[in-house]
Amino acid sequence: MPAGSAIDELRDALKRLPGIGPKSAQRMAFHLLERDRDGATMIAEALVRALSSVSHCSLCNNFSESEVCAICADQRRDQSLLCVVETPADLESIEQASAYRGVYFVLMGHLSPLDGIGPDQLSVNRLRRHVVERGIREVVLATNYTVEGEATADFIATTLADTDVSLSRLARGVPVGGELEYMDAATLGQAFTERRQLPRP
Amino acid sequence: MPAGSAIDELRDALKRLPGIGPKSAQRMAFHLLERDRDGATMIAEALVRALSSVSHCSLCNNFSESEVCAICADQRRDQSLLCVVETPADLESIEQASAYRGVYFVLMGHLSPLDGIGPDQLSVNRLRRHVVERGIREVVLATNYTVEGEATADFIATTLADTDVSLSRLARGVPVGGELEYMDAATLGQAFTERRQLPRP
Repeated sequence: MPAGSAIDELRDALKRLPGIGPKSAQRMAFHLLERDRDGATMIAEALVRALSSVSHCSLCNNFSESEVCAICADQRRDQSLLCVVETPADLESIEQASAYRGVYFVLMGHLSPLDGIGPDQLSVNRLRRHVVERGIREVVLATNYTVEGEATADFIATTLADTDVSLSRLARGVPVGGELEYMDAATLGQAFTERRQLPRP
Repeated sequence: MPAGSAIDELRDALKRLPGIGPKSAQRMAFHLLERDRDGATMIAEALVRALSSVSHCSLCNNFSESEVCAICADQRRDQSLLCVVETPADLESIEQASAYRGVYFVLMGHLSPLDGIGPDQLSVNRLRRHVVERGIREVVLATNYTVEGEATADFIATTLADTDVSLSRLARGVPVGGELEYMDAATLGQAFTERRQLPRP
């Protein structure tokens, strides 16, 4: 790039963003430099601030700026009900649904031996200690219904088998608003297998 | 977001990147904080460095860290042949094709009245001065073959009509490796209209 190495460096740095290739990185670099220098400053400052202040909640492992995050510190929530999710994004979605009032444990990933993510990387031992020491009554395994998510849920269930905690998994079936015509066979099959009995009218 | 405002701020800042919506911004923020803190530092530093050191070449208007960019300063290039492009990315593509040995003028956009980009925003007057004062022999209008690019080329041609510079436009037609079966009608039409006569064997 004849324009000089500061742009090269910026372009290479932006390629570190997930899902951003060389062309997009170049477009971003040019856009920021030509049309949005304020935005570029904002991004740089927000990165520096987040890097220095964001760590993990010592209880639930979610991102937090304090030792214990707001959810774990909230005494109005059921502290004996624990929902295990793969990522902070999953936690966000559940919070937005407002359907859950217990606390969380964030694995920060799922079992993926090919990517070098085993039980140790997922702090499953820490989860186990958490469950035992804090008297958790029920663990809701809310990992994704993907192959890796299922394997992760199975593994956690095995790890917790010798405790007396009750285990559950999110219901599977037809999404709300879903049309049977467009549903895949596996989902329809599950929905039939796990159909629920209606009360007699 | 219960994890705290530094993450919120980072997510909002990342939304300033072109083509990045709330979901992608969140994914990027989480990825950088969880898996690539070095990358986050690199991005922040590269942004700060680029913002402070990258400006515009005083001749061609391309991004440059010096008063005059490397291309304009290169005396082996034909300084009387000027290629007008919309963006630094277009210049990059032409340089990579190694088919051009003149110099450039970068408009940093195209005429787009709806976005408030008129002749003044595109430094067309500066281009005109450049052409007159530096004794340019030929101007190759290499704006895109889009509606805006064509309008921009037309406008520049009009602006330069009273000078004695020679004007040209990149050839249009079937791309190298292109298959007629998959070519759109407009391109095929152009390729017929602008067909070139072959020398007699």
